[in-house]
Amino acid sequence: MFNLFHPLPADMTEERFENLLATPHVRIERIVSQGHTSPAQGWYDQDEDEWVLVLTGSGTLEFEDGRRQMLAPGDHLYIPAHQKHRVCYTAPDEPTIWLAVFVPAAGRERHADIKSPEPG
Amino acid sequence: MFNLFHPLPADMTEERFENLLATPHVRIERIVSQGHTSPAQGWYDQDEDEWVLVLTGSGTLEFEDGRRQMLAPGDHLYIPAHQKHRVCYTAPDEPTIWLAVFVPAAGRERHADIKSPEPG
Repeated sequence: MFNLFHPLPADMTEERFENLLATPHVRIERIVSQGHTSPAQGWYDQDEDEWVLVLTGSGTLEFEDGRRQMLAPGDHLYIPAHQKHRVCYTAPDEPTIWLAVFVPAAGRERHADIKSPEPG
Repeated sequence: MFNLFHPLPADMTEERFENLLATPHVRIERIVSQGHTSPAQGWYDQDEDEWVLVLTGSGTLEFEDGRRQMLAPGDHLYIPAHQKHRVCYTAPDEPTIWLAVFVPAAGRERHADIKSPEPG
């Protein structure tokens, strides 16, 4: 069984994305970063909702309004579709393992129904 | 921000289920077990697909055909809708933290499309 914590990619020249599960309704990815920021230019502007969790290391997400959110192990964040964001920092000296869950957009009118702890 | 690793529930008399995210398309739960098995009787027989990951501790899932799968930290498993299963063991001496992602059933005809590493 492929384990989320090991093995880690041997070559960390580039940020690494691997699918853990893909069904018609969800895609779950492991992302391993080490000092990487992404995307190379501009913003992620996704059609899907994303829920992201940091498992090891640390990373900082930046949003179009200038807000930054640092995520340490166990911290997680809901990123609605089309909320522009980028990874502006990941720890340079250890791997940052992210778990990312992508699902169809809840839609703007449904955000009031969405229950998720707010970033503190 | 609510962190997945702390605080853990102070009272672990019962297994604890907490929603981390709920949208019309996905429900993400933290489950904390310590020596618990569940359900109390019979099997989980779910309408939704589930993807489950163990983060700390360890747990063993049992399936209707008698197969058992031990999950250690980082191990994960896809459980298609209506695949009857139960948690037949969790570590008694430390908390087992599970992350569970529930999404609409991919449907039997789509299983061939689903990409997930097989249990080893």
